Amino acid sequence: MKALVIGAAGMVGRKLCERLAREGALGGRAIDELAMVDVIAPTAPAGAPFKVTTQAVDIADPAAAPKLLAARPDVIFHLAAIVSGEAEREFDKGYAINLDGARFLYEATRRENMASGGAYTPRLVFTSSIAVFGAPFPDRIGDEFFHQPLTSYGTQKAIGELLLSDYTRKGFIDGVAIRLPTICVRPGKPNAAASGFFSNIIREPLAGQEAVLPVADTVMHWHASPRAAVGFLLHAATMDTGAIGPRRALTMPGVGVTVAEQIEALRRVAGDKVVARIRREPDETIMKIVAGWPTRFDAARATALGFRAEANFEEIVRAHIEDELGGRVA
Amino acid sequence: MKALVIGAAGMVGRKLCERLAREGALGGRAIDELAMVDVIAPTAPAGAPFKVTTQAVDIADPAAAPKLLAARPDVIFHLAAIVSGEAEREFDKGYAINLDGARFLYEATRRENMASGGAYTPRLVFTSSIAVFGAPFPDRIGDEFFHQPLTSYGTQKAIGELLLSDYTRKGFIDGVAIRLPTICVRPGKPNAAASGFFSNIIREPLAGQEAVLPVADTVMHWHASPRAAVGFLLHAATMDTGAIGPRRALTMPGVGVTVAEQIEALRRVAGDKVVARIRREPDETIMKIVAGWPTRFDAARATALGFRAEANFEEIVRAHIEDELGGRVA
Repeated sequence: MKALVIGAAGMVGRKLCERLAREGALGGRAIDELAMVDVIAPTAPAGAPFKVTTQAVDIADPAAAPKLLAARPDVIFHLAAIVSGEAEREFDKGYAINLDGARFLYEATRRENMASGGAYTPRLVFTSSIAVFGAPFPDRIGDEFFHQPLTSYGTQKAIGELLLSDYTRKGFIDGVAIRLPTICVRPGKPNAAASGFFSNIIREPLAGQEAVLPVADTVMHWHASPRAAVGFLLHAATMDTGAIGPRRALTMPGVGVTVAEQIEALRRVAGDKVVARIRREPDETIMKIVAGWPTRFDAARATALGFRAEANFEEIVRAHIEDELGGRVA
Repeated sequence: MKALVIGAAGMVGRKLCERLAREGALGGRAIDELAMVDVIAPTAPAGAPFKVTTQAVDIADPAAAPKLLAARPDVIFHLAAIVSGEAEREFDKGYAINLDGARFLYEATRRENMASGGAYTPRLVFTSSIAVFGAPFPDRIGDEFFHQPLTSYGTQKAIGELLLSDYTRKGFIDGVAIRLPTICVRPGKPNAAASGFFSNIIREPLAGQEAVLPVADTVMHWHASPRAAVGFLLHAATMDTGAIGPRRALTMPGVGVTVAEQIEALRRVAGDKVVARIRREPDETIMKIVAGWPTRFDAARATALGFRAEANFEEIVRAHIEDELGGRVA
């Protein structure tokens, strides 16, 4: 079988391809070929037991998706996106990549579906976002909470979900949209994203570095590890979609914890010495941004459909230590 | 002030333009010019006290909206759409008119907004639809019921709403999307639309003709008169949008009645002789389609914002007799 990963140079895309390379199969079927695509050429995972191609592609170019689809991949992962802050600053670019990019992909798939007389209906996994929801929020956001995004990014993702459900309903694709929690612990360097501190306060202390906590301990947020995110993608790619019904967008399960609970989990796993590397330095701007974010979800549908996140934040900390630090804490 | 009506050849668009011609003003400001546009050239209302232009325009053509917006109309009514059944059969055409047509319009408005240094931010009234909602439904659909359309038409309207809210949030337009109830009594000939009977069983008996009722008396539906629909449009065009907040799409109020209640209202207004012209002829196909439709709404937000429908179905029947039959029943 052939898989196509669009957005394969991003953190989650890279980890997905590494996992595919380790397993060599998807849903019990051996992978023959993996096409990795991103706006910059992605890096092929080491030791893949199948053919890997890597390619720099601009998905906002209408000619791009038809070329990618000509190979008729059995499974398509669409992870590519302009992130929230950039989509807010760069209105045209956000719509071009996040809306048109998704629509060109669905449409190219439909063209192959029609050319095949309906025989070609690939599984298409689209990473959506909890940004499709807008404040004010209930204490827990359920599966039927309505979509009233307050950002261009959230608008573009909500539209991507609507199109995916309609193309699926018409039988052109077999789509599943998954709304990812905040990915924590993000590997790599601290970044300037407003949400960066959720990962920074775990990753940096574990690596022997100081980290800044810009918000109050009481801030509640919704997390899943990079490992869980890859698990969501694989499950979405292989599950029986007959059970989903027409509402093809699913909020993924996660771990809803306060910053204080994050820190206590870090203490239980790595001790007081590591926790002492967190420095409190309140930042009004970040506090304001974070106050508008959803806190936690009741992901009942996805859980019933077999999606699994970590059970608690300790598991998230341990997953980071195992996957990124070779099991060692500084 | 200048007004632009896109979809001015349709029943509601025509009635809107006739009303504008009668009143000569919109929100207390005299109208200088009314541009009427549709896929076929619309007919100018008689005796308008302002300049009227009529034009055949294909809004799916990317070059069309920039030309219409070059005149910088103060108020834009976007009523043009491919209807539900056609959008379901003609996938490309539905997306071209209903999604791209709306997006080209918003985008052309944004270009004028930017060219004016932000000074030009016209009111843009978009007619959406209760088709943005998909079954299963609660007994009454509230303002926070989520948007999971089960048709391409509903998908396109939901996307039109999302884009309108985002362009409004960014300050490019001042948008209001209104979800119309089923318009009843539709003037004109009986038509083959599955919803046609809701109007047929009132209009035809009042005109001395027999009408077929293809569903059970217990079917509940959500109605507003053509006169109320025009009232919604005028209110959306002139209201203080500061009170709406970021959720710019509003479900319009209406009259939620069963077919039996429609018939009893007709009897009270026009007597047994008229009601006797309704012939029951159950149609399994129509019954099945109608069973998937929403029944009634709690339009609390729109009502609080000053939108007014009829208070009961008798008023709807009387509005038809006054507006279409010169006050006379056959």
